[in-house]
Amino acid sequence: MPLTKAGITRLRSLREKKHREALGLFVVEGEKVVGELLAAKFPFAELYATDAWEGRAAVPLAAARRGTEPAPCQIISAAEMARLSHYPTPSAVLAVGRIARAPLPPGALDRGLTLALDGIQDPGNVGTLLRIADWFAFDRVVLSPDCADLFSQKVINASMGSFARVAAHTAPLAEALAGCAAPVLGCDLQGDDVHGLPALRAAVVVIGSEGRGLSPAVAARVTRRVTVPKFAAEPGRIGGAAESLNAAVAAAIVCDNLRRAQGP
Amino acid sequence: MPLTKAGITRLRSLREKKHREALGLFVVEGEKVVGELLAAKFPFAELYATDAWEGRAAVPLAAARRGTEPAPCQIISAAEMARLSHYPTPSAVLAVGRIARAPLPPGALDRGLTLALDGIQDPGNVGTLLRIADWFAFDRVVLSPDCADLFSQKVINASMGSFARVAAHTAPLAEALAGCAAPVLGCDLQGDDVHGLPALRAAVVVIGSEGRGLSPAVAARVTRRVTVPKFAAEPGRIGGAAESLNAAVAAAIVCDNLRRAQGP
Repeated sequence: MPLTKAGITRLRSLREKKHREALGLFVVEGEKVVGELLAAKFPFAELYATDAWEGRAAVPLAAARRGTEPAPCQIISAAEMARLSHYPTPSAVLAVGRIARAPLPPGALDRGLTLALDGIQDPGNVGTLLRIADWFAFDRVVLSPDCADLFSQKVINASMGSFARVAAHTAPLAEALAGCAAPVLGCDLQGDDVHGLPALRAAVVVIGSEGRGLSPAVAARVTRRVTVPKFAAEPGRIGGAAESLNAAVAAAIVCDNLRRAQGP
Repeated sequence: MPLTKAGITRLRSLREKKHREALGLFVVEGEKVVGELLAAKFPFAELYATDAWEGRAAVPLAAARRGTEPAPCQIISAAEMARLSHYPTPSAVLAVGRIARAPLPPGALDRGLTLALDGIQDPGNVGTLLRIADWFAFDRVVLSPDCADLFSQKVINASMGSFARVAAHTAPLAEALAGCAAPVLGCDLQGDDVHGLPALRAAVVVIGSEGRGLSPAVAARVTRRVTVPKFAAEPGRIGGAAESLNAAVAAAIVCDNLRRAQGP
């Protein structure tokens, strides 16, 4: 089936969030990210590739389509790919997925470990935070509605495949935290030393944006502020004057200390 | 002194590393980054700003130049700034600094804490690593020659001012590590649990690129491989399948554990 002009316009429109929302679809491009998501068994709805895509051997071609999963791969020309691509340099594969937003089940935050993102607008940071939640086997990630769009290519690329493995929910954060039975740890510059965390079987780790920190409504739900200790510059020693850590870096250190405190 | 065409060409050329090297100068643009570096007392050689730059009140204007430091600020028009700028959207201030490369003193790695970057090519990661070294008051950062250029705007922006505070050296890493008396900790996926680090007063933390890991010559100098423990997915638990952590995130967790093991 050759690509129609309307089909190309549809796929190209997905670079914008409003069109992704309207169509309920998102796009990822590139052999690395598509390969990572296929390896994580992400059920793509459509796959387009040129002959150059080495991964196409692993998925059935459209002509041979029988089942519905994995998505059949439609082989297109490099010229067609250039018309589909969202980038100046098209890659050999482009995949389309359905946007699925699982609602946060009531009481979910009471159980296990949650990483909550409060207004993290940098897509690279959001993707890195998904990867951190994946590494530390957190049970879920909750994003406030003003975070970078989970279904943007930059977020998915930075997550290195964790996008397909982590349960991510978008929810108004202050409301979701209301009545939460688990401790809510807010990453902050004036909190308790994170090295002294007790063993917690359930906890929510909340990280705010680098520029603005935690939003007031979310900060009001925090039950314990935690800080990664900074080391002061000693005479003759350079450093120790950094104002803050990158949001994802700070969250990762808190997650590591939380897991360490849980013990084996 | 109005900007000459040659002067504009000179400043614009600094977007490329070869021209930065030839002229021994680098450029940073933007109120945030210039403000951070001025706050860290970075001795800029030249400063250009439009009337819109709020920070200009803090530095003398060119017309009133008397000393050599801080650099006088030359007020230019928005149209001139647009011609100087390396970006499609020019900011209100552009600063020029001299490239200074302090050689790594012999035996320096034997003392205190060093963060060594082995082929980290992503400029955002290099900047974030400078910020991490600053936060944990490391004595120095050593970059292998194939890291992202320390004097590129992306590195300096991502360092959030730490560029001006951290002693950074570029040196062939395997040679610099030869005969190092301090333990050389290599961040790796198959090493000792970083939670079990002993108290070390001197150490070198080496982090490799995400794609390729430590280079063989550097890996041969590592005396102890350390790993941030990953948590395995349990039945019903999502996550724990991430292949790796972001290089800067992994390094930060190792630095935190190193400082924690040192005790108060």
